[in-house]
Amino acid sequence: MTAPPAIILSHTQMGENIGAAARAMKNFGLSELVLIAPRCDWPNDRAQMLASGSGDILERARVCATAAEAVAPYELVLATTARDRDVLKEIHTPEAAARRLRAAAGAGGRTAILFGGERAGLDNDEMSLADAVITIPTAEFWSLNLGQAVLLLAYEWLRSADATPAVRTRATIARPATRAELVGLFGHLEAELDAAQYFFPPAKREAMVRNVRAMILKSRLTDQQVRTIRGMIVALVKNKYRGKK
Amino acid sequence: MTAPPAIILSHTQMGENIGAAARAMKNFGLSELVLIAPRCDWPNDRAQMLASGSGDILERARVCATAAEAVAPYELVLATTARDRDVLKEIHTPEAAARRLRAAAGAGGRTAILFGGERAGLDNDEMSLADAVITIPTAEFWSLNLGQAVLLLAYEWLRSADATPAVRTRATIARPATRAELVGLFGHLEAELDAAQYFFPPAKREAMVRNVRAMILKSRLTDQQVRTIRGMIVALVKNKYRGKK
Repeated sequence: MTAPPAIILSHTQMGENIGAAARAMKNFGLSELVLIAPRCDWPNDRAQMLASGSGDILERARVCATAAEAVAPYELVLATTARDRDVLKEIHTPEAAARRLRAAAGAGGRTAILFGGERAGLDNDEMSLADAVITIPTAEFWSLNLGQAVLLLAYEWLRSADATPAVRTRATIARPATRAELVGLFGHLEAELDAAQYFFPPAKREAMVRNVRAMILKSRLTDQQVRTIRGMIVALVKNKYRGKK
Repeated sequence: MTAPPAIILSHTQMGENIGAAARAMKNFGLSELVLIAPRCDWPNDRAQMLASGSGDILERARVCATAAEAVAPYELVLATTARDRDVLKEIHTPEAAARRLRAAAGAGGRTAILFGGERAGLDNDEMSLADAVITIPTAEFWSLNLGQAVLLLAYEWLRSADATPAVRTRATIARPATRAELVGLFGHLEAELDAAQYFFPPAKREAMVRNVRAMILKSRLTDQQVRTIRGMIVALVKNKYRGKK
């Protein structure tokens, strides 16, 4: 069993941020919340409101007086900092951090991610307890609020083991048309266009056909879509013939 | 110039979510916000509050009556949906979506990401205007709020071109110790440990030395750290000799 990392929030000032953190954790399968000396009331009504269904995480939150007490159970502790903090430790992207956490957790270790207070971040004592640092890349001069930072790290944790293919379509509706079905469509469409004297002048017919076929192939039709297009062709020419009679 | 995607929010009910979206956009370098028939007042005080410094994005937001009007300027429009929506389009992970957006933008195209309202998401008409779909992976049965979804897509946009190395250390402080410096440390430490008769029984000396050296090598010391450790050894043995005199 690969246990997700604990989220440790140090000296948090706003209950809203603790609630938003809990919701973000729940969204991505994390459940262990630790609070170091919260600067807001605890338990906290605003936290409950923002947690929106992840109240169980708030109820089970472990509250500690010191960072040393908070990080005691973990084998690997990564600390988040804003860009350009002068640290002596390795600095990880969120993605690399998630990989490292997952490797440690996969080997049976308990892990944690440490977040500082809203204003000043982590102090040097807290930083000294962490194995390494995570910095979230942002546009210049911008920084994330606490809830956003927890969200992105929780997302990266889930993503680091998510097996969803990068691009997919629903299997039930997505059988690509066979080449025979496409050739049938070409023949049908071109015969009706010939009948309608669409290809003009005749010397250009071959190039025009090539363009139409390329356009159809490029859209990578499913079998169902080929049938739909052929049905539309039938409907369009039926009206025309009726008009002529 | 690779233009970031526009963020299009359809029928948003809560000003807070528009403000959170603007802040998330600013954090990751996006700037073009489009609102389809917002269900809250517009302009909106709660949006301003949550935008926290990204008010310029709110002021420049384009407000449209219909989705067709909103998506008109873009060559590529990707629509976000919650998990398991029955769509006929390709479904992208956020990462794959960011790559596709960046490819289109790199070729000079304008692109957009479309988000539905808080309760019902995008309706079928809106979906039919999009080229493909993005689904954010979450833990089971959970869904993100609007601000969180915009944040994750904006983050993936920046990440798709972010060149930050996965793991780095500060160049100024991070010169790895040379092998000569490490061998110097080994010699210094082992000589003092010999003097202190630490290696006992003598038959085990070789194995013990090997273990100590492996431990030191594994921690991949910098030149500065080697000097620090040698300084500590000097300090420790100085006191001991003084005590004996």
